[in-house]
Amino acid sequence: MTAVDFERFVEQLAEVSAEAILPFFRTALTAEDKGRGGAFDPVTEADRAAESAMRRLIQDTFPGHGLIGEEFGSQQEDAEFVWVLDPIDGTKSFICGFPTWGTLIGLTHRGAPVYGLMNQPFTRERFSGDCEAAFWRGPARNGNGMERRALKTRPCADLSHATLLTTSPLLIDPDLRDNFHRVEKEVRLSRYGGDCYAYCALAAGHVDLVIETNLNPYDIVALIPIVEGAGGVVTTWSGDSAAGGGSIIAAGDRRIHEAAMALLG
Amino acid sequence: MTAVDFERFVEQLAEVSAEAILPFFRTALTAEDKGRGGAFDPVTEADRAAESAMRRLIQDTFPGHGLIGEEFGSQQEDAEFVWVLDPIDGTKSFICGFPTWGTLIGLTHRGAPVYGLMNQPFTRERFSGDCEAAFWRGPARNGNGMERRALKTRPCADLSHATLLTTSPLLIDPDLRDNFHRVEKEVRLSRYGGDCYAYCALAAGHVDLVIETNLNPYDIVALIPIVEGAGGVVTTWSGDSAAGGGSIIAAGDRRIHEAAMALLG
Repeated sequence: MTAVDFERFVEQLAEVSAEAILPFFRTALTAEDKGRGGAFDPVTEADRAAESAMRRLIQDTFPGHGLIGEEFGSQQEDAEFVWVLDPIDGTKSFICGFPTWGTLIGLTHRGAPVYGLMNQPFTRERFSGDCEAAFWRGPARNGNGMERRALKTRPCADLSHATLLTTSPLLIDPDLRDNFHRVEKEVRLSRYGGDCYAYCALAAGHVDLVIETNLNPYDIVALIPIVEGAGGVVTTWSGDSAAGGGSIIAAGDRRIHEAAMALLG
Repeated sequence: MTAVDFERFVEQLAEVSAEAILPFFRTALTAEDKGRGGAFDPVTEADRAAESAMRRLIQDTFPGHGLIGEEFGSQQEDAEFVWVLDPIDGTKSFICGFPTWGTLIGLTHRGAPVYGLMNQPFTRERFSGDCEAAFWRGPARNGNGMERRALKTRPCADLSHATLLTTSPLLIDPDLRDNFHRVEKEVRLSRYGGDCYAYCALAAGHVDLVIETNLNPYDIVALIPIVEGAGGVVTTWSGDSAAGGGSIIAAGDRRIHEAAMALLG
């Protein structure tokens, strides 16, 4: 498979998931509480329809590849290539009618994330990366057609100049909130909300830090090649690979990654 | 001035503000801390350029009208008709590259809000209302051109079924946080982030409650005719007109407006 073929295939995944999701966006939804740890975790028909469509396309095209999905679990997860899917990352944003959710499509090779796409079909934006480079594609500024731009994190030498994002302080593990607040107290600006959009904003150089806990692999795998491709760093709070999820820190500049890690302990 | 002329004039205001703002969105910004009460309050060139452009157009067209703007203050604020402008509501979202900010254009007649527009030029969405009806205009679902839909709040009989939005718990007045948390504990889902987008999501029937404190008139005046036009209610925490800002509660259904007011005290 050439690079062009691969890009076309991932575009197809983005298209079939968008077709499944958009009819449900900003319409009455039946949100079902899966009751993970008692937290409100809406799951929509859209989520399931999109993951089914993507899984079907992957299985038909690459029967030897593995699959990890938010909705329908894992299969062949020890395969050389494994697709990691979250059809709607940011379900709270989705059910509130906000366009700050995204479809996450990640690919790992021997366990290491090698390609990631975040597709936001309402704003028609796509953020993609392969650990070496990262790109944004969306409506052109002049209103005619689409444009593509390279993503690049911005320099930030010191926490006192940093903008920090986290999806919600309520989602930070209670045992780790003090650690989080130690960083939050040092930064220039702390903002809540975002999910996958937060990591893409970091890759695009608009924010400097994203700190979260309790992430699942499908929440983060697709975002790693985007952040790294844009020049950023994303690890667990102890500096290990972020591919397994857990407590995650992403930074646009290594200097504040180090500074924040020291405070997170 | 006919209704058609008026609509065209407001569209023009939306267009000149969008032209002033969009070149600055997702580019390197010089955020200036105005230091209001020590909070981080970024002001951008975009904010100023957009307000200047709107003020110029209003003054040229309606020299007898008053003006209240976030950036350049008030003039003729005792006039029969007064325009209330916030070029970028949601400056934190704006500087983080999130599309959940908006340009607020409100009109009061003898002090009462009579028309409001929220323009989000990146997603090309406009939410408007005149207290009697409210509308959304944005990209059509089929991808061809624009479409317009009436906005309608959704019924919600009980706080235990409600979705609550607030821009940030950190922005709730510290003296009033306990009151806010009394409501937050009762609702089904609490989500942070939003600014003007939160009130528009309420008007569109995606969320049930928005509760905030310390709002300025220009943060809320334009949103009142949208929320009321969609069938919702928006008042201060003590049930008075929201037009003066302060502690604000908006609800899609009067039953949870009452229930939340009782808890807010």
